[in-house]
Amino acid sequence: MAETETPKRSPEIRKDKIHNRWVLFSPARSRRPSDFKAKSNPQPNNQTKCPFCAGHEHECAPEIFRVPEHSTNDWKIRVIQNLYPAVSRELDFQNTLVTVVGDVAVSGFGFHDVVIESPVHSVNLSHLSPVQVGEFLLASKKRIEQLRNCESIKYVQVFKNHGASAGASMSHSHTQIIALPIVPPTVSARLDSMMEYYKQTGKCSLCDIQPNEFLIDESAHFISLVPFAATFAFEIWIIPRDHSSHFHEIDTEKAIDLGGLLKLMLSKMSLQLNNPPFNLLIHTSPFQDDPSHAPSTHWFIQIAPHLSGVGGFEIATGCYINPVFPEDAAKILRNVRIS
Amino acid sequence: MAETETPKRSPEIRKDKIHNRWVLFSPARSRRPSDFKAKSNPQPNNQTKCPFCAGHEHECAPEIFRVPEHSTNDWKIRVIQNLYPAVSRELDFQNTLVTVVGDVAVSGFGFHDVVIESPVHSVNLSHLSPVQVGEFLLASKKRIEQLRNCESIKYVQVFKNHGASAGASMSHSHTQIIALPIVPPTVSARLDSMMEYYKQTGKCSLCDIQPNEFLIDESAHFISLVPFAATFAFEIWIIPRDHSSHFHEIDTEKAIDLGGLLKLMLSKMSLQLNNPPFNLLIHTSPFQDDPSHAPSTHWFIQIAPHLSGVGGFEIATGCYINPVFPEDAAKILRNVRIS
Ligand SMILES: Nc1ncnc2c1ncn2[C@@H]1O[C@H](COP(=O)(O)OP(=O)(O)O[C@H]2O[C@H](CO)[C@@H](O)[C@H](O)[C@H]2O)[C@@H](O)[C@H]1O
Ligand SMILES: Nc1ncnc2c1ncn2[C@@H]1O[C@H](COP(=O)(O)OP(=O)(O)O[C@H]2O[C@H](CO)[C@@H](O)[C@H](O)[C@H]2O)[C@@H](O)[C@H]1O
Repeated sequence: MAETETPKRSPEIRKDKIHNRWVLFSPARSRRPSDFKAKSNPQPNNQTKCPFCAGHEHECAPEIFRVPEHSTNDWKIRVIQNLYPAVSRELDFQNTLVTVVGDVAVSGFGFHDVVIESPVHSVNLSHLSPVQVGEFLLASKKRIEQLRNCESIKYVQVFKNHGASAGASMSHSHTQIIALPIVPPTVSARLDSMMEYYKQTGKCSLCDIQPNEFLIDESAHFISLVPFAATFAFEIWIIPRDHSSHFHEIDTEKAIDLGGLLKLMLSKMSLQLNNPPFNLLIHTSPFQDDPSHAPSTHWFIQIAPHLSGVGGFEIATGCYINPVFPEDAAKILRNVRIS
Repeated sequence: MAETETPKRSPEIRKDKIHNRWVLFSPARSRRPSDFKAKSNPQPNNQTKCPFCAGHEHECAPEIFRVPEHSTNDWKIRVIQNLYPAVSRELDFQNTLVTVVGDVAVSGFGFHDVVIESPVHSVNLSHLSPVQVGEFLLASKKRIEQLRNCESIKYVQVFKNHGASAGASMSHSHTQIIALPIVPPTVSARLDSMMEYYKQTGKCSLCDIQPNEFLIDESAHFISLVPFAATFAFEIWIIPRDHSSHFHEIDTEKAIDLGGLLKLMLSKMSLQLNNPPFNLLIHTSPFQDDPSHAPSTHWFIQIAPHLSGVGGFEIATGCYINPVFPEDAAKILRNVRIS
């Protein structure tokens, strides 16, 4: 029997204690964990030049900054405004508008930016060197620190869509940053749940995590693992070893160390799962966070491959169905060899 | 200027008070609301016969019951076991297993069934008569009442996936029923949020809803509308006029009345949006619900068309981006004429 050919286990329902939600583990819905591959990962547009390419800067919405700062045609990273923003930087943030009794709305003020990760159309984050991935992380940090100066902004979400079925409409490697005047619901639920753990144990839930059989790899300052109640098959979390509430607290040394581990995780995932569509999410804390949250909140990165779709059950219940047990996924990812 | 050609409005962030979550309304991301159409809605498999067809009953997992009860080849509806169940009816429900400190898991006990809505492969719910749609609703009610006899079951989710990008792997018209030994996270959030509204106002949030410009249609016992903070563009809710916590409280008269309104909504949506992929969800209350919840909980149906995908932002934050204001969607759906 091959190493990963485990007999079918009974289904199990696990609690994700970070988000306070249940996940259904249903091996009856799966092939063998080691057989999981993305079937095909159609890229949203397959031209070889696009507005995000070097030389096409004039086709983009205005630039916010570039890396290196005074570069011309030789830029490495550009942070630009999103041409079709979900929130508008031109609105005044007005306080709560009560439209109908009991209904609440606020103006859609905020910032929606795009980080172009490379001037070259065909280069992905995982193709860059650890230092270059570190520079991308530091550019995101710099943009978050700028947004922090705007008093109305409460939370900043950094997210990457790769592949059409993970939402990407542009194939040139990029990440988006949305700054919101509200704390989003999943973030509130996460903060509350981590606070609850802290109240019960006196410890931060991520400082206290026991990687054991869930561990994939580690670096000087970070560990990577498949979480105990992963939402998606082969989902990966990268967690800073030291307690830190906000991603933007990262320094250059740690960013480069993280760059190496992130590159490794993306490379392993791509090799094992056949370049699947995925989202990369930075889960951080709100800016003006209640100081009582500081000991319980801990930022981390989630990489969520999309190997199967979602349906009405997940939308209705918030329970995801994951066909692969996290300990099996971790074992497979641990053993992937990158040449 | 055509009636529906409204100038672009500023984005707005609205609170869904039923689920206690924020939705971003971002018209900059959209075409004109009246131009929304599903591009193509690939069906998961385009054979004309499948295991759900009349004459292929032996290819299915065991039957639970059929309608009419003693029919043979002339059945109209079959409720069967799911061949690849997400939860297992063969497990004993064991209480909480604590696997690692702080990590909680329970055995994946539960029931996963399929309701085959018609013996004919090409017939959709919207093709059936109001009485036949009512019979489908009564078959779901009957199955829920059976599941209620199992003490370990806490919540039953009825959901329909139509079209591959809404999750359907079978194209023959069907609905799924999953019975769980836990109350799922989105359901808990909904119950809490409706309770909060009740505490503040002394009223049930759905009894108290003001349809106004959000109304689409109405019947003797139900109203249909686009909710103030709809998660999806052209999302429809059907709400019973009378206060009722549980879907399975529906009687035959109301089921047939609902059958007519549901058929109308599905027909309007299909005509206006070009047969889009969609989910149909019945949001009800847990079985052994805290009696203090009775005055604040009210079941309803959600129809969620999938006109654009979701990406990392929605997964990370739980905030959806909806390009169409609900009042615009309601106006368009109100005016669709079914010949
Ligand atoms: N011969 C047979 N007898 C009995 N049952 C049979 C059968 N052949 C197939 N089935 C069952 O019929 C069901 C058909 O369901 P759907 O097409 O609505 O979506 P599915 O459950 O596959 O997954 C979608 O819905 C789930 C839940 O939302 C998501 O997790 C998933 O990603 C999405 O694709 C399947 O569950 C399948 O197991
Ligand atoms: N010339 C230009 N200058 C500046 N910006 C430009 C530009 N051309 C395009 N853009 C922007 O670049 C971004 C590229 O983003 P992605 O490909 O990651 O996904 P998108 O935001 O389209 O939607 C995905 O992500 C969102 C959020 O998760 C989901 O709502 C949605 O369904 C999913 O498809 C787009 O937001 C687009 O507006």
